[in-house]
Amino acid sequence: MTYCVAMRLNAGMVLLADSRTNAGVDQINTFRKMTVFERTGERVIVLMTSGNLAITQAVRQELHDLKTEAGDTIWTVRTMHAVAQLLGCAARKVHARDAESLKEFNVDFSASFILGGQIAGEGPRLFQAYAAGNFIEAGEDCPYFQIGEAKYGKPIIDRVVNPRMPLDEAAKCALISMDSTVRSNISVGLPLDLMVYETDSLAVTRFARIDETNKYYQMIRNSWGQKLQQVFDEIPDPSWMDQCGSVNDALRGLPLRVVSPDSSVDPVPSQTLAQQS
Amino acid sequence: MTYCVAMRLNAGMVLLADSRTNAGVDQINTFRKMTVFERTGERVIVLMTSGNLAITQAVRQELHDLKTEAGDTIWTVRTMHAVAQLLGCAARKVHARDAESLKEFNVDFSASFILGGQIAGEGPRLFQAYAAGNFIEAGEDCPYFQIGEAKYGKPIIDRVVNPRMPLDEAAKCALISMDSTVRSNISVGLPLDLMVYETDSLAVTRFARIDETNKYYQMIRNSWGQKLQQVFDEIPDPSWMDQCGSVNDALRGLPLRVVSPDSSVDPVPSQTLAQQS
Repeated sequence: MTYCVAMRLNAGMVLLADSRTNAGVDQINTFRKMTVFERTGERVIVLMTSGNLAITQAVRQELHDLKTEAGDTIWTVRTMHAVAQLLGCAARKVHARDAESLKEFNVDFSASFILGGQIAGEGPRLFQAYAAGNFIEAGEDCPYFQIGEAKYGKPIIDRVVNPRMPLDEAAKCALISMDSTVRSNISVGLPLDLMVYETDSLAVTRFARIDETNKYYQMIRNSWGQKLQQVFDEIPDPSWMDQCGSVNDALRGLPLRVVSPDSSVDPVPSQTLAQQS
Repeated sequence: MTYCVAMRLNAGMVLLADSRTNAGVDQINTFRKMTVFERTGERVIVLMTSGNLAITQAVRQELHDLKTEAGDTIWTVRTMHAVAQLLGCAARKVHARDAESLKEFNVDFSASFILGGQIAGEGPRLFQAYAAGNFIEAGEDCPYFQIGEAKYGKPIIDRVVNPRMPLDEAAKCALISMDSTVRSNISVGLPLDLMVYETDSLAVTRFARIDETNKYYQMIRNSWGQKLQQVFDEIPDPSWMDQCGSVNDALRGLPLRVVSPDSSVDPVPSQTLAQQS
């Protein structure tokens, strides 16, 4: 599997990808899932991919090679939306070529994409595209996209990310989200590709390839775990009290219970959560 | 969907289930997914279910009605392992009856189960069972099981749960795990059924039906979010430095990059993560 996440903020974009691929658990490899198409000073386009590696690599190649009817390419189209359309065409072209053969081997045509970047003349834009070639764009209310093993790392993003966040804070959030995923799912693994894009820089100005020796990631990994444990310890445990109150209250507090038909003993009254204020 | 989690600790067991069901997003209902079979002083058996509600309710009914060849039922078998076998038989019986018809309507036979409890004469035991009727038992190294929307709430469990944990601390962890899930996935929702089982009590002694008005859950929900934000703020943001070091180091730090073939400007040198100790 894979985990990629991208956030579009007022200050720019943060994009982060892992690099583990697996065909079953006995064939684990490292492939880069983030590719940057760059013409310094004019456009920076970042593609991140998840799904069947043969499919996503083929789509990446097609995205690079495709020409529109008007003869435009990824290097000449005027907007990120047009790049997303090219990506959709690329996915459909690979589908038309490969899907039937894959089906004969019971292989799903699985692929998903995050496409972010900026072309001179418009602001940074972020898209998520699907295997069918359709796509959606991030907005103020949902400023991030995830593909691959997205669920483990979603809660922290849901709690802290907003479009006014500084870029480096968002990068920290992305790395914490990745760390939670890496810990809970062995199909996601280091090294990571982290890119932090500043609005209007139109160049790759901040990029890190992060492996186990990276000090900042080690710090995140250790201190997030420790602090989470500390916060967990600070929250009081529940305490219990005897059921009381009206019959309705008591009924609400009882389990869906099947009592043994031959039981001679009545169920004992159970306690319920104490309601400290 | 559903989220259920159960932990088997030295001190007993914690079991927690949500109660939201949905057939699409426009038909959302509340059904209890935790059922307790109890003969006070002799056995307490808790079943939690996830999947197609018609299937899981049918399996629950079969579990209650089934007799083994020797004439034993859920009320007379001697071990929790035998109850798990009954559950497996129940799932297979429902499969034999319903699966073919469901297939005609393209409905998967989806069902999964957590079965925990204690029968006098042995310690508490915890199982996870699958739609096919096979099952696994929790051990020291993996003392918990989850079914349904398990991923959002897994990282916190992976970080804090161990078999030596006191029951109420484990209940707190289960509720935090549930809160993360409820926040990130609308298909999981309140009210919750929480049962805390003390080893050898052989009775339901602590049970809570938790809805939005529950003060303890409100406290968890508010303080976990706040403290998470606080911990997040305490961790330093990354800082950046110019790429330096040997050629190999520099190569490792660069993105997978496609430069525009007609570019007259070289890519600018990018910064990488500073490695503070």
